[in-house]
Amino acid sequence: MIALNQNFQNLPGNYLFAKISQEVNNFRLQHPDRILVDLGIGDVRGPLAPAVIEAMKEAVDEMSNASTFRGYGPYGGYDFLVEAIIKNDYTDRGIKIDAADVFVSDGSKSDSGNIGDIFSAQCAIAVCDPVYPVYVDANVMAGRTGRYDPETGRWSDILTLPCDASTGFLPRIPSENDGAPFKGIIYLCFPNNPTGVAAGREHLTEWVRYARETGSIIIYDAAYEAFIREDVPHSIYEIEGARECAIEMKSFSKTAGFTGVRCGYTVIPAALQIDGVRVRDLWARRQSTKFNGVSYVTQRAAEAVYSPEGKVQIRQTIDACMQNAKLLREGFADCGYEVYGGVNAPYIWIRTPNEKKSWEYFDYLLNKAAIVVTPGAGFGAAGEGYFRAAAFGSREHSEEAIERIKQL
Amino acid sequence: MIALNQNFQNLPGNYLFAKISQEVNNFRLQHPDRILVDLGIGDVRGPLAPAVIEAMKEAVDEMSNASTFRGYGPYGGYDFLVEAIIKNDYTDRGIKIDAADVFVSDGSKSDSGNIGDIFSAQCAIAVCDPVYPVYVDANVMAGRTGRYDPETGRWSDILTLPCDASTGFLPRIPSENDGAPFKGIIYLCFPNNPTGVAAGREHLTEWVRYARETGSIIIYDAAYEAFIREDVPHSIYEIEGARECAIEMKSFSKTAGFTGVRCGYTVIPAALQIDGVRVRDLWARRQSTKFNGVSYVTQRAAEAVYSPEGKVQIRQTIDACMQNAKLLREGFADCGYEVYGGVNAPYIWIRTPNEKKSWEYFDYLLNKAAIVVTPGAGFGAAGEGYFRAAAFGSREHSEEAIERIKQL
Repeated sequence: MIALNQNFQNLPGNYLFAKISQEVNNFRLQHPDRILVDLGIGDVRGPLAPAVIEAMKEAVDEMSNASTFRGYGPYGGYDFLVEAIIKNDYTDRGIKIDAADVFVSDGSKSDSGNIGDIFSAQCAIAVCDPVYPVYVDANVMAGRTGRYDPETGRWSDILTLPCDASTGFLPRIPSENDGAPFKGIIYLCFPNNPTGVAAGREHLTEWVRYARETGSIIIYDAAYEAFIREDVPHSIYEIEGARECAIEMKSFSKTAGFTGVRCGYTVIPAALQIDGVRVRDLWARRQSTKFNGVSYVTQRAAEAVYSPEGKVQIRQTIDACMQNAKLLREGFADCGYEVYGGVNAPYIWIRTPNEKKSWEYFDYLLNKAAIVVTPGAGFGAAGEGYFRAAAFGSREHSEEAIERIKQL
Repeated sequence: MIALNQNFQNLPGNYLFAKISQEVNNFRLQHPDRILVDLGIGDVRGPLAPAVIEAMKEAVDEMSNASTFRGYGPYGGYDFLVEAIIKNDYTDRGIKIDAADVFVSDGSKSDSGNIGDIFSAQCAIAVCDPVYPVYVDANVMAGRTGRYDPETGRWSDILTLPCDASTGFLPRIPSENDGAPFKGIIYLCFPNNPTGVAAGREHLTEWVRYARETGSIIIYDAAYEAFIREDVPHSIYEIEGARECAIEMKSFSKTAGFTGVRCGYTVIPAALQIDGVRVRDLWARRQSTKFNGVSYVTQRAAEAVYSPEGKVQIRQTIDACMQNAKLLREGFADCGYEVYGGVNAPYIWIRTPNEKKSWEYFDYLLNKAAIVVTPGAGFGAAGEGYFRAAAFGSREHSEEAIERIKQL
C-alpha cells in the first residue's frame, strides 16, 4: 500500500515563522513605501565576526587546492571543532564531556526536529507553553501528540507545562493533577524562547531530580546560553546527575550570527541510557544514515567562534544586542506595557494591552506602526495575549521601534 | 512511557561506509608505512572548480558586511539557486518544473533518509539489490521493512528487485511471482550506485507506466546524471507521465565535488498527488519544521556550478574522472576480471575471482595490495561476490591501482 503520513493532517496551519513571513511579504507588496521595523522572527543582522570571516576564507582556499581539499568529513563533526566545543563550552565550566558525546549538525532546528527518530512513537511528551513550535510540530508528525483541541489549543497526548506570570514563566514540576508521575521526554529551553526567561540552578536541579526519579529524559535547548548575564547555568550538565537524564542542544545561530551559516551541535553523554542501551549510539546511527556532516567551511567558521579574537568580537555583538534588549524592555515598560525577559536572552515577552489577542495585536502593530513582532499565540495557548520582541537589530532600529510605540 | 525506537535493533551492523572507514583506519594504524590506493567510499578528490571558489569567496565577503549579510534564508533555497537548477537541469532539457517544486537541501543523503517522514509507516517499499544502503536503513528505522533474514540477506516486508548480470543489472518490473501488483514506494537510482549501470528511456518508461498503473511512487536518485555519456535520460521527468508518479533527487556532491560542501535538491512536482493531496505540500511542511535551509555560501557555490565558466571547469573534472573509469574498467578486464558499469557513471562493478565473498576479497585487496574497494555485499545480498571500484582518484592513482592488481 501507499499513503501519506496522516499525522501531517493534524498540524494546525503553517509553521509559525513561515506564516509571519507571508503576512509581512503581503504588507510589503501593499505598502512598498513604508519602512518596516522587524522585531519578529528573531533573525540576526550580522555581519559575521572578522575572525569567523577569516577562517571561512582560509577554508575556502583549502578547498581550492587538491592537497588541502576536504571531501566527506566525519558524520559527527571534525575533531578540531568537537575539541573546541568541549574545551570552551564544557571543560572550562568544569563539565566532563567526551568527543563521542558531541554531534555537530547543521543547526538545532534540524536536531530538535530529528531527535524523535530515535525514540518510540509511543513516548509521552511534555512541553512548556508557550514553546518553540518545532518541538510540538515534529512530534505531531511522529504521531505522539494525539488530537488537537482548537478550543483550548492543547493536544490530548502532550503534557503541557504552562508558564505564566504567576511562576515567573518557569514550568511547574508535574504534580498529581497532571497525571504524575509523568514519564517521557521533557523539552526545556533556557534562556527561554519565546519568554526570554532564564532558569536558575535550583529550578533545573528540581527537573533533573524529577527526570531521574521517573526515568524521563530532558531535551535541553541551550540555544541562548551566550546571552546569559546573571548567575544561572549555561549548560544542563552543570546540574549533578544531568548526564544520566539529559540531551543538550546548542546552536551558533544566535551566539555568532550563524542563522545563514547553519551550525549547531547536540550532546548525548554515554551515561544516558534507556534499558541499558546508550541513547548516543542510536543518534550516531541515525546521523550516519540520514546525514552526511556539516560543510567544512562552516565547521572552520564555528571553530573560529572559540578563538581568542572570535570570542572578543562575538562578546561585543552580544553586548550590543543585550543593550538593545534593555532599551526595548525599558521602552515598552515606559509606554505602560507589562514586560518580561530580556535580561539573559535577546527576547522580551510583552503582554498585549487591553487583553488583545496576539494575532490581532500583530496586525495592529504591522499596519499602524510597520512594526513586526511575533504573536505569542503562535507559541501555544498560554502565549495568547502576549507578543515577543527580539533585540537583534541595530541600536537605531530598536530606538525607532520604541519611538513608533510611543507615538501609537 | 519512554522507550527507544525498537526498529533500530533490526539494523544489521554498522552503516556500510562507517564500517569500511573503521577497517581502513585499523589498517593504517598497523601499517603506517603502506600507501593506500582508495577506490572505496567514492569520495571526490577535489579541488573545487575555480568558479565555485570565487563564488564562495564573494559570498563570504557579503557575510562580512551588515548591508549584504544573509541570515535565515528561504527553507527551500534561494531563488537564484532554484532558478539556476530549473533552467539548466530542466528547462534546457524541455522539462517544465516550477520553483515551488524544488527543495534545496544539504545533500541527497539527508533527503533520501528524511523523505520517509511524509509517508505512512505502513507503506510498502521496493528497492533494487544491490542498493545504496540509506534507502533500506532509513526504512528499517521507520519500521517498514519487517524482519531481516541473515540467511538470505532479505527483509520480509521489502520487495527486492535483484539486479544481476542476466538483466544487465536493471531491475525487472514486478511480476506475479513478486506478489504483483506491488503498490508502494519504488527506489530507483540511475546511473546506478553501486553497479555504475545506466537505464535507457525504454526501461524507465516501463517503470513510469508501472507506477502510474499501480499508484506507486518512484523515488528517483539521479546523483550521477552528470557522468552520463550515452543517450539515456538525465532526469526521470524526460519520461512522459513521470510528473504524476516520481520524486527526483539530485546532488552536487559528485557532479561538482561537493561532498564536503553539502548541497543537493529534491523535486516534487505539484502533479504528484496521493488521494488528492499534493506530496509536495507535506515535504514543504516537513522541511520548514525540521530544517532551516542551506548555508548561503554553499548556495552561491552551487549556483556557480551552472555559470558558463563553472560548467566548462566541471566538465573537465568529470571528463578526467571518466577517463579513469575507462582505465580501471579496461585494467581490471585485462587482468581477467568480469567488469560492469563505468561508462555512464564513476563506478565499476567487478565480480570477485573464484566466487570469493565480497568482504573476504575486500580484506585480501587491502592486505595484499593496500587497495580499498567497497564490498558488494554491503549493498545487499545480490552484491555478494562483487566489489565496487570508484574512479574519483587522479590518473596516477588509478594507474597505480591497476599496476598493483597486475602484480597480485
